[in-house]
Amino acid sequence: MSQRPFSDRFCAPHGGQWHLRDIDPAETDGLHGKKKVRKEIKQYAQRMRELQYLLYAEGKHSLLIVLQAMDAGGKDGTIRHVLGYMNPQGCHVAPFKVPTDEEKAHDFLWRVHPHAPGRGRVSIFNRSHYEDVLVVRVHDLVPEAQWRRRYDRINDFERLLADNGTTILKFFLHISPQEQLRRFRKRLENPAKQWKISEADYSERRYWDQYQAAYEDAIARCNTKHAPWFIIPADHKWFRNLAVSRIVVETLEGLNMALPPPSVDIDEIRCKYLAELDQAREPDRQ
Amino acid sequence: MSQRPFSDRFCAPHGGQWHLRDIDPAETDGLHGKKKVRKEIKQYAQRMRELQYLLYAEGKHSLLIVLQAMDAGGKDGTIRHVLGYMNPQGCHVAPFKVPTDEEKAHDFLWRVHPHAPGRGRVSIFNRSHYEDVLVVRVHDLVPEAQWRRRYDRINDFERLLADNGTTILKFFLHISPQEQLRRFRKRLENPAKQWKISEADYSERRYWDQYQAAYEDAIARCNTKHAPWFIIPADHKWFRNLAVSRIVVETLEGLNMALPPPSVDIDEIRCKYLAELDQAREPDRQ
Repeated sequence: MSQRPFSDRFCAPHGGQWHLRDIDPAETDGLHGKKKVRKEIKQYAQRMRELQYLLYAEGKHSLLIVLQAMDAGGKDGTIRHVLGYMNPQGCHVAPFKVPTDEEKAHDFLWRVHPHAPGRGRVSIFNRSHYEDVLVVRVHDLVPEAQWRRRYDRINDFERLLADNGTTILKFFLHISPQEQLRRFRKRLENPAKQWKISEADYSERRYWDQYQAAYEDAIARCNTKHAPWFIIPADHKWFRNLAVSRIVVETLEGLNMALPPPSVDIDEIRCKYLAELDQAREPDRQ
Repeated sequence: MSQRPFSDRFCAPHGGQWHLRDIDPAETDGLHGKKKVRKEIKQYAQRMRELQYLLYAEGKHSLLIVLQAMDAGGKDGTIRHVLGYMNPQGCHVAPFKVPTDEEKAHDFLWRVHPHAPGRGRVSIFNRSHYEDVLVVRVHDLVPEAQWRRRYDRINDFERLLADNGTTILKFFLHISPQEQLRRFRKRLENPAKQWKISEADYSERRYWDQYQAAYEDAIARCNTKHAPWFIIPADHKWFRNLAVSRIVVETLEGLNMALPPPSVDIDEIRCKYLAELDQAREPDRQ
């Protein structure tokens, strides 16, 4: 297994001409089979939770995780199996769906801003402000001149959050069209999931290439130092889970966080209040 | 172990004169030791998560869980170890701290209402609107006539939520003053927790009896059919976890939820779109 940090290994290309189709969605960094990796994923998930506690205790930083993918790319699964391992106090999941009339009456970041994480906290965006340069572009929902300007507005917005101590990680979960279709088929055969199948899931497939082009531009135009994009090979769910959790851990470890010192004199508290405990009758304990 | 539903067994008394001091906080319903019970707690937690999926899929009901307790009573632990097992998408934890100036400039339910769960969703209140008849009363923060009126306002508010399909479960995690002090001592000795110790934790202990009286009134006055209070013996953390998860499961099972039928013709989708899959080259899969 590669010792090179995953946050380096899977960071989106900086500059130059590149295409998503040249990046292998089934890549596993030389690892074989999910069984061996399961333990490692669990270790990263546990470490992530410890680091989340430090983030909360220290209260200097916050973490924003953006998840984007084609349908069935694994956004929900990544939250359920990896990111959901965080303590739900201090971790807020914000799903962004089709905007309401009220939301459409405002600028495209108006509905997003309230979900930015406060100091010590984590927010996970399931879809995000990037939809406003993706689905909006593919389906021609606003004029091109308007969505083109949004790349700069997005960079400005993410700069604002970063300036306030927010670490931003943006994950594109990269799957192949074949893998998407396989997952759609599995859903069709799963009685617990049939209720949410819509024909749009399938008909959107005809826009595959347009979506990929829109992702390439969004990633290239908004892959900044303060808010990097990662392209995660996601055909193998276990590898996706490993990569996302490892990048979150690597990033949080890089913040060199520490517990703050006590704000009271611990010895004094001990003398002043704990005498009472020693006098108190200790009932039998199991 | 008692076969009587826990939602019945630990529901707060309806009418009559009763006192918290007469309810044993170390009760375990005849169960001994946490090891045996751990598997059972995990089963309830898993079942809770399945039922949460049904809640989301059906989209008719929502669930509001209110956690109240004395300091160190175990609100955070209950979230971390039991309720946090739910899928974080669809489960929102709202902690209520000392109100801000803006919040104090409004009625006491103004800051609470936005956190009510939408259909298909779960909200967990870590502290709640009940603080406005608890700490407010003990420390005389508003005139008695004003906080006394709030019991009715709380019942009205919870009625509003219940009318809209929200199931409300209110848990008072009941610990003894000795157990509180033991937990305070443990915190003192835990380097990872020393940073958040404040002298107020200890000095508030002198108001123990006033808090208990305030809880008794709040529970008695607001123990309604549509929003019941449960008094959970919480000196033993494992029993508290068992009781809370079992009551949540019992309640959700009582809703008799079902998956909605598919909104599309599954066979038609299969014919129309999956031919493509069968034609597609199937790469080797592990």
